[in-house]
Amino acid sequence: MPVTVRFLGTSAALPTSQRGLPGIAIKYDGAIILFDCGEGTQRALMEAGWKLSGIRLICISHLHADHVGGLLGILTTREFQGITRPVTIIGPPGVSDFAGSILKYTYSHIQYPLEIKELQGNGGIGYQDENLAVHWAPLKHRVPTIGFLFVEHDKIGTFNVERAVTLGIPAGPLYGKLKAGEDITLPDGRIVRASTMVGPAIPGKRVAVIWDTKPCPNAYYLSENADLLAMESTFTQAHRDEADASDHCTAAQAAKIARKANAKQLILTHISARYQEPDPLLQEAIPIFETTLIAHDGMEFIVP
Amino acid sequence: MPVTVRFLGTSAALPTSQRGLPGIAIKYDGAIILFDCGEGTQRALMEAGWKLSGIRLICISHLHADHVGGLLGILTTREFQGITRPVTIIGPPGVSDFAGSILKYTYSHIQYPLEIKELQGNGGIGYQDENLAVHWAPLKHRVPTIGFLFVEHDKIGTFNVERAVTLGIPAGPLYGKLKAGEDITLPDGRIVRASTMVGPAIPGKRVAVIWDTKPCPNAYYLSENADLLAMESTFTQAHRDEADASDHCTAAQAAKIARKANAKQLILTHISARYQEPDPLLQEAIPIFETTLIAHDGMEFIVP
Repeated sequence: MPVTVRFLGTSAALPTSQRGLPGIAIKYDGAIILFDCGEGTQRALMEAGWKLSGIRLICISHLHADHVGGLLGILTTREFQGITRPVTIIGPPGVSDFAGSILKYTYSHIQYPLEIKELQGNGGIGYQDENLAVHWAPLKHRVPTIGFLFVEHDKIGTFNVERAVTLGIPAGPLYGKLKAGEDITLPDGRIVRASTMVGPAIPGKRVAVIWDTKPCPNAYYLSENADLLAMESTFTQAHRDEADASDHCTAAQAAKIARKANAKQLILTHISARYQEPDPLLQEAIPIFETTLIAHDGMEFIVP
Repeated sequence: MPVTVRFLGTSAALPTSQRGLPGIAIKYDGAIILFDCGEGTQRALMEAGWKLSGIRLICISHLHADHVGGLLGILTTREFQGITRPVTIIGPPGVSDFAGSILKYTYSHIQYPLEIKELQGNGGIGYQDENLAVHWAPLKHRVPTIGFLFVEHDKIGTFNVERAVTLGIPAGPLYGKLKAGEDITLPDGRIVRASTMVGPAIPGKRVAVIWDTKPCPNAYYLSENADLLAMESTFTQAHRDEADASDHCTAAQAAKIARKANAKQLILTHISARYQEPDPLLQEAIPIFETTLIAHDGMEFIVP
């Protein structure tokens, strides 16, 4: 199943003519998972042709205005459009009060099921369904901030049909049992171990979204072996002091995390408005981690 | 002094690819007065090259999400940019709690002076300074909603220099007194009446912003003799039932208000997403009120 990652807004703090406020969406099996909702997110989804009815989960990293300014629009437009499918929001402590307040004061009566779950502690699984899980862990920013890891469930390994035929296993329910990892006994009394019939599990795709943090152990932890690491790169090393002071990362720091975590692909996003041309960010990252790209609004990346 | 009116967002309820959420800005003597802040307003101002530092007053018509979703972005970006000039917000009851909540839960510490004034009662002057006043009156919508009228202060009439010379009035302070409306006594004892020296006051320009209402007496009252009436036109008469049910206006109703109020120019805005082509709205309005235009995002109108 393809995992399509779309960069809805790629700026930091304030929008520019080229970059909207932060938002990333993953589409998987028709469902959309949003990571943050900067102001303009609903319009960015509309431009993509990604319908709000598809949104199943909204992961909020933290409550700074640039990352949540579009939440009200997403929730209320969904209601206006008569969408009845449920939405879950997961985010840091305070997200429930924030969402509750903006809905209350704008007279917005949401009729679809809306579950809001505040994530407290050292991390874990924030959401899971039949296809995927979203893991989370706290990051290091000025306010409570969370990094996320989208993980597609592992797929069952390849069933060795050829061997099954050779062994004379009748096609049908016994195949199903072996695929489900169950050993079987054939009518003639032979025992067939599932482990000899099914190849190793195919690991699910992993996409980490890490922004608004200084480098920290959980940034590595979430990114480990990620197929894609979407990572903030607010500054270059030339503005390292500013990055340190504001608890943000430079391009070099993001690249080091990608390298150490053995990520396959790094895409830099959350770009400060000062970089009209993002080349300096890329030039800084690539010598450290070669498979680096810079996000732009509307960019789509299909996880290989 | 030119009064420039810019239509920042011209949709209703939800954005389209062509129209952003509602917002109108008036620029006068370098100051910007905003009427509503739909999601995307800060970016629409940026596209215009109108700096947030210029915003002096924000007039909120009502607290529905589509009209206030961009307030947080305006207030916080202004802070991020280090702007220290004060801002006043005027709006319906609840605007103070709404603004307070969104700032509180997003950890937004606004350091510039921010005054929030809730307008209660039957109308009056919501704001005034050395150049202008903003009048308000309640409209008729599902929630407390306010219409606004920008009024440039009247200018002193033309001073009749020729007559002053003929009468032998010495140029200088006596001219000033006459211009200020004060009668003077000349050295030879003659009394000169100010009213004989200064022409009638030049009326200030008037711009009414009326949206999210059904037709009501205050919509007429605020629009009376307006140089520009920026008026909602959410539907055509073909959807009159829907307009009635949702407390909105049709193009024909807006045109009737403009005609009855003797407005000079009507610009229809707050266009439902169903009208990809706004011609039907215009075709409905023009037979009733000829000087009608349809707003588009980024449209500027300089009041003649």
